[in-house]
Amino acid sequence: MSAQLIDGKARAAALRAEVAQGVAAFTAAHGRAPGLTVVLVGDDPASAVYVGSKGKATREAGMVSGEYRLPADTAEADLLALIAQLNADPAVDGILVQMPLPRHIDSDRVIAAIDPAKDVDGLHPVNTGLLVSGRKGLVPCTPSGCMLLITEAMGNIAGAEAVVIGRSILVGKPMAALLTNASATVTLAHSRTRDLAAHVARADIVVAAVGIPNMVQGDWIKPGACVIDVGINRIALPDGKSRLIGDVDFAAAASRAGWITPVPGGVGPMTIACLLANTLAAAHARA
Amino acid sequence: MSAQLIDGKARAAALRAEVAQGVAAFTAAHGRAPGLTVVLVGDDPASAVYVGSKGKATREAGMVSGEYRLPADTAEADLLALIAQLNADPAVDGILVQMPLPRHIDSDRVIAAIDPAKDVDGLHPVNTGLLVSGRKGLVPCTPSGCMLLITEAMGNIAGAEAVVIGRSILVGKPMAALLTNASATVTLAHSRTRDLAAHVARADIVVAAVGIPNMVQGDWIKPGACVIDVGINRIALPDGKSRLIGDVDFAAAASRAGWITPVPGGVGPMTIACLLANTLAAAHARA
Ligand SMILES: NC(=O)c1ccc[n+]([C@@H]2O[C@H](COP(=O)([O-])OP(=O)(O)OC[C@H]3O[C@@H](n4cnc5c(N)ncnc54)[C@H](OP(=O)(O)O)[C@@H]3O)[C@@H](O)[C@H]2O)c1
Ligand SMILES: NC(=O)c1ccc[n+]([C@@H]2O[C@H](COP(=O)([O-])OP(=O)(O)OC[C@H]3O[C@@H](n4cnc5c(N)ncnc54)[C@H](OP(=O)(O)O)[C@@H]3O)[C@@H](O)[C@H]2O)c1
Repeated sequence: MSAQLIDGKARAAALRAEVAQGVAAFTAAHGRAPGLTVVLVGDDPASAVYVGSKGKATREAGMVSGEYRLPADTAEADLLALIAQLNADPAVDGILVQMPLPRHIDSDRVIAAIDPAKDVDGLHPVNTGLLVSGRKGLVPCTPSGCMLLITEAMGNIAGAEAVVIGRSILVGKPMAALLTNASATVTLAHSRTRDLAAHVARADIVVAAVGIPNMVQGDWIKPGACVIDVGINRIALPDGKSRLIGDVDFAAAASRAGWITPVPGGVGPMTIACLLANTLAAAHARA
Repeated sequence: MSAQLIDGKARAAALRAEVAQGVAAFTAAHGRAPGLTVVLVGDDPASAVYVGSKGKATREAGMVSGEYRLPADTAEADLLALIAQLNADPAVDGILVQMPLPRHIDSDRVIAAIDPAKDVDGLHPVNTGLLVSGRKGLVPCTPSGCMLLITEAMGNIAGAEAVVIGRSILVGKPMAALLTNASATVTLAHSRTRDLAAHVARADIVVAAVGIPNMVQGDWIKPGACVIDVGINRIALPDGKSRLIGDVDFAAAASRAGWITPVPGGVGPMTIACLLANTLAAAHARA
């Protein structure tokens, strides 16, 4: 391995410590701690784990953590009513509705109902629009975390060639917007892309957000590139256990890359840290 | 010249005829014609010409054309008050504030004040966000027109390699979003891009929206590519007259391209036609 390992766990811990300091200052200045409220509908076990760790991290940062767990058959109207109530609640700075929602609920409608100023997931169309326009808004947490890792590794990336694989509104598209705003030349690839290997081969920055284990092959990587692996794929092991791997063939890529994120311990921990940072930013913007 | 010339003038005339039919049907169904109101602040002569031709085209399509011409020293608050009044006016389906605004007015604030449902220029952050998310909203007119020309020439562009040169929120960025939504693999280039020639050389679709005469050289073009020239540059001629040229070295590019737009007569006429189409769509969405 020649690549420098990007320690997302350490970077996330540093960001969380920074947020905790900011929270203390906010609380001293405003007489209340910032508040993040998470809404979970249904009982998907993975979602329940995420919600649990978000709540824990929120409290550890000194913020007020609210949690609503609604039954899987909650009517859309009731969820919208809860969001209206949270929008109006001055103690709530951030609202996060855990995705995916049960099928009978229109998640676009739910996201659009969140006050953009409290949309700490950065998924409201207004926040997407502000991000794409290069203006101040709330930025989705995962790409935001990736960006911190990239700029810390590489410094100024103006003029760098970047390839983002995956075009979801959660990761790929906001990632492409952030890189464009930092003046990289960005190519946005997806399942219809013809020669992915050739695109990756000319990239100084590769962000993989696909959800296919090891799909980015090591010998595609341009020597010295910065490789950010967003993928989280659980694969079964012969002994009946399982482990998490990314979208990038790590060992092979690490022998060519300049920097690379591991899975787990790379992008993953940054997401919650950026959620806390967004909540603090939302509290400041509202105060 | 081997390329097929894309006749934007004819395509725009056809779209305008289509809109006029739609307007007649809307008027019959709703007892009123759709209305587009244009606001011009100051007396920039080019802007005055644009506003004039927009008004004329609006009336020719059978719609109600409103026009406000405010003095250059209009206070931002007064402009915002006018927009609030137009937002509330049920006879107004589309509001267009002609850019650029005088320096003392914050154009972001003005655009954000327009009801997104009446934002026929597609510049409100909500509409940018909806476009990037691949959802229904009002799309900026120039890229919308380019898209019509591209798909009419090429048909299905899924998997095609596209390079957009220029990343303005008016043209380049929405163009990239539209091409991504149609499943092209899009690279967004700009002034910091290192090897523009190499990017263009692999592109099946090239959209140039820069504002530099002839900057895209003919021998960069991949044989058979579709070349869309958004640039409008006025250059002085030796005899003291002037003429309009695009961002692409037309003659040289036309000898390699599969399709190419001329300047003038290519993208230009599509912009107003798409503005009319947006106004009719806004009227339908509101009705
Ligand atoms: N670390 C974190 O905190 C974090 C956060 C969010 C997500 N993730 C992980 O990141 C991955 C992506 O998440 P997501 O929400 O963005 O997923 P998603 O919504 O499923 O999007 C996947 C994207 O990958 C593209 N794709 C599929 N097959 C491809 C192929 N063969 N070549 C190129 N592109 C291909 C898809 O293209 P089409 O659009 O053409 O279908 C789509 O745009 C998942 O593994 C997820 O678990 C991690
Ligand atoms: N046909 C129509 O109806 C219509 C409508 C609108 C505009 N236009 C024309 O289209 C052109 C672009 O308009 P716009 O409003 O998008 O202009 P703009 O806001 O000035 O944006 C120009 C873009 O070109 C990029 N650029 C500048 N120099 C470059 C270079 N050497 N290589 C690559 N990219 C470069 C800039 O990059 P940076 O971001 O890095 O500065 C910027 O993103 C103009 O000629 C305008 O008149 C035509």
